[in-house]
Amino acid sequence: MINVAILGYGVVGSGVYKVINDNNSHVSRRAGDDVRVKYVLDLREFPGDPAEDVLVHDFDVILNDDEVDIIVETMGGVEPAHTFEVKALKAGKSVCTSNKEVVAKWGFELLQLARENNCNFFFEASVGGGIPVIRPLINCITADHVKSISGILNGTTNYILTKMAEEGLAFEDVLKDAQKKGYAEKNPEADIEGYDACRKIAILASLAYERQVDYEDIYTEGITKITGIDFWYANQLDASIKLLGLAKRQNGVVYAMVAPFIVKQDNPLYGVCDVFNAILLDGDMLGDVMFYGKGAGSLPTASAVVSDVIEAAKNKGRNIPILWRPEKRQLGSVDVFETSYLVRVSGLKAVDRLKETFGNPSDELRYERNKEEILTNEVKKVFGNVKFLMGQDGEEVAFVTKPMSGAEFEKAAEDFVVENRIRIADL
Amino acid sequence: MINVAILGYGVVGSGVYKVINDNNSHVSRRAGDDVRVKYVLDLREFPGDPAEDVLVHDFDVILNDDEVDIIVETMGGVEPAHTFEVKALKAGKSVCTSNKEVVAKWGFELLQLARENNCNFFFEASVGGGIPVIRPLINCITADHVKSISGILNGTTNYILTKMAEEGLAFEDVLKDAQKKGYAEKNPEADIEGYDACRKIAILASLAYERQVDYEDIYTEGITKITGIDFWYANQLDASIKLLGLAKRQNGVVYAMVAPFIVKQDNPLYGVCDVFNAILLDGDMLGDVMFYGKGAGSLPTASAVVSDVIEAAKNKGRNIPILWRPEKRQLGSVDVFETSYLVRVSGLKAVDRLKETFGNPSDELRYERNKEEILTNEVKKVFGNVKFLMGQDGEEVAFVTKPMSGAEFEKAAEDFVVENRIRIADL
Repeated sequence: MINVAILGYGVVGSGVYKVINDNNSHVSRRAGDDVRVKYVLDLREFPGDPAEDVLVHDFDVILNDDEVDIIVETMGGVEPAHTFEVKALKAGKSVCTSNKEVVAKWGFELLQLARENNCNFFFEASVGGGIPVIRPLINCITADHVKSISGILNGTTNYILTKMAEEGLAFEDVLKDAQKKGYAEKNPEADIEGYDACRKIAILASLAYERQVDYEDIYTEGITKITGIDFWYANQLDASIKLLGLAKRQNGVVYAMVAPFIVKQDNPLYGVCDVFNAILLDGDMLGDVMFYGKGAGSLPTASAVVSDVIEAAKNKGRNIPILWRPEKRQLGSVDVFETSYLVRVSGLKAVDRLKETFGNPSDELRYERNKEEILTNEVKKVFGNVKFLMGQDGEEVAFVTKPMSGAEFEKAAEDFVVENRIRIADL
Repeated sequence: MINVAILGYGVVGSGVYKVINDNNSHVSRRAGDDVRVKYVLDLREFPGDPAEDVLVHDFDVILNDDEVDIIVETMGGVEPAHTFEVKALKAGKSVCTSNKEVVAKWGFELLQLARENNCNFFFEASVGGGIPVIRPLINCITADHVKSISGILNGTTNYILTKMAEEGLAFEDVLKDAQKKGYAEKNPEADIEGYDACRKIAILASLAYERQVDYEDIYTEGITKITGIDFWYANQLDASIKLLGLAKRQNGVVYAMVAPFIVKQDNPLYGVCDVFNAILLDGDMLGDVMFYGKGAGSLPTASAVVSDVIEAAKNKGRNIPILWRPEKRQLGSVDVFETSYLVRVSGLKAVDRLKETFGNPSDELRYERNKEEILTNEVKKVFGNVKFLMGQDGEEVAFVTKPMSGAEFEKAAEDFVVENRIRIADL
C-alpha cells in the first residue's frame, strides 16, 4: 500500500484526489502497489465532498504518520508550501508538486534533500500543466546538447493573443472577456506581465543547462503593449505573435528571457492557439521536437502530478538522480543577445525636439508632407539593409531588421519615436 | 566504464557512433559513468572511417566479452537481429534498438528476457525516430486511460501527401520526386502501403493497452489511391489528408488501423507537414497531448537510441519494468469501427448493370442528362442525412456521411460506383 497525502484541496489538489480515485486500479497497477489518498490537508471544510473523510487541518498529523509515503503539494505560493516540502523530504517522504514558485526558487535544494533522504522530489506539473516535459527533458533528451528551448508556457496570454489575432480585438477587451470566462484572474499581472512564464522557463533552463537559473535574472516583458496593428504587420510576415519563454545558448553563453515574439508559420509553435501550451526544444543531434497539450486545468495538471506519484511509488526508497546543480548560471544580458526585430516608428525624435525648442513652421510642414519618405531614408541610414512592410497609413513606418544585439538595437532606435518593437523567433 | 557494442553500421548505427563520440562528456555525465563504443559489428569494411579500429565481423566476439554492458541493434530486418538480441539479453547485456520489426513482433518476449536477466530492453527509436514517445508513454502518461493514439508515423508518406496538398501534384509524380531526393526508397511499398506505420502503431497500442497487439491483425490501407481530387474536397472541409496509425478504444473495444484520414484544421496533426512525424494521444484525464519531431534520419534516430543507452547505463543490473503483457489483444473489426467518411460516387451500379443487360438507350440518356440529381437523390435515400460538397464537374457527387460502422458503410455503398472513400478523424 502506498499512502498519499494531498496538501491543498484547490483546483489541482481536488483533481489529484479525483484521478487517484477514479483511475485507482489503473494507477495502482502502474505504480506496482495499491495507491490511496490517506489525507487531504486544507484549512477549509468540505461538507459532503468525497474527501471529507480524509480531511485534516494540521500538517503534523501527516508528517508524523509513518505510513505516508508520498506528499502531493498543490497549495501554491511560497510559504508554507516550501517549509512543508522540506519537512516531508527530511522525513524521507517523496514530494510531488505543481508549485512552480517553489520549484523555480528551491528546486535544487529540494532535489538535494531528496537525494540525502533516499526519496524523490518530482515536479512534472510545474511546467506545461499536463504536458510531459520535465521527465522527457530528464530521461529522454539526454544525448543532446540543448541549443534552445522556446515555449508557450502560459495559457491565459496565449488565449488573449489568439483572440487578438483572430478577431482583431484590442488587448483590454480580450482581457476583460478572458476574465469573464475564468481564463484570466481578477489580478492578471502574473500572467500578462510574463511572471508565470518566467518561473517556468527558469525551471526548464535549470534542467536543460544543469545549473540553477534564478528567475530574478530573467529579462521579462509582458504582452500589454501588443496592439492590433502589430498583428497586422505580423500577418504580412506570415506570422503570429506569441509570448515565449526562451532559453538559448548563443556563442557559448546561455540567455533566458520572456517576451512577445513574432513566430512564423513554419515554426511548429505557430499553430499553438487558445489556452494550449507547447514547448519546442532544439537538440544538437535531434533537431526540433515539440511537446503540446493543455498547460492548465484541474484534471490535466492532476494527471501530471499523479504520474509523479506513480514514479515515486515505483521508486520507493530509491532516489532518482536529477541533474540540477546549485551553482548559479550566469545568464547573458539581453543587451548582447542577438535577434531580428519588427519595428514600428512614427517619427524622428530630432523633429520633435526641433518643434519643442525652435518650432520652425516651414520645416515642420515639409516634414509632415514627406514624413514617410524622410522616416524611410532615416531608417535605411541608421539600420542599414531592412525589409519594409506595407503601412496602414502614412503615420508610421514598419520594418524588419537584420539580426542585431539588444544594445545595437537600442542605440539605433534612439533617434526614432518607436511605437513598438517585437523580437522575431529565428526558426 | 560502460562498454557499448553497435550491431550494424548503417544510417542509424553510424549515427549512434557519432552521437556517443561527439557528445561523449555530456553522454557520460548523464549516464553517470564513462560511455565508450568498444565494438561495431558489420560484415562490410570501412577503411578510413573512425569506427575502423573497433570494427568486428563476428557477433560472438561481442557476446563473449564480459566487458560489454549494452548492445545497440541497428541492423534492421528480423534475422539475425532478433537472434542477436535474444542472445545478448540472455547474457545479461541490455539491448537498445531502433528495429521496429523486431520490437513489434518480439517486444513482449524480449522484455521478459530482460526482466529474467536483470537487464533492459529499450526501443525509443523504433517509433517516431528522434521523438520521445515510448518512454513518455511508459513513464509519463501513466495516470490516464488512453482513449486514443493517432500518429503520423511515416515521414515518406507525409512528405508525399504534403506535396500533393501544396502543389496539386499527382501521387506518382511526387513519389518519383521523393525517390530522387532519397525520401522514398526504390521499393517504396513498406512506406506507401502503410506497412511501416502498421508496425509502429502495433508497438504504441501494445504499450498503451498493455497487451500484445499483433501487427498482422491491424487493418492497413496505404495512400496509393489518394488523388488531387480528394485534396480538393478535403480543402472544402478545411482539412488535409494524412496517413494515420490509429489505436482507439471505442465502446470498450480496442481498434487499431492504418489508413488515410481527413484531418481537420483544429486537429494538432493538421500542421504536421513534410517528413515530420507526430503522435497525438488522448488521455481520459489529460486530454490531448502531442509529441512532434523528426521521425527519421541518422542523428535524430541515433539521439533516441543513445538516450536509451544512457538509461540502460544508469540502470545497470536493475530491470525497469515495462507493462506489455504477452496475452494477445483481440482487436475490434473495422466492420464494427465507427467513423464518418468522405465519399465520392460517380454512378449507380444499377444503371451500369442495366446498360450491360438490357441497354435501354432512352433510360440511359435520361440518366446521363440528370446524373447529378439522380445520384444525389439516391445518396440521400441510402445514406440519410449527409453533407454534400461542391463538385468539380457533373461527373461525380461527393459527401460526408454521419458516423457509421464499416459494415454499414460497405452495405450503403454497394449500390454506387465509389471513386474513393476516406475516413474522417474525429477530433
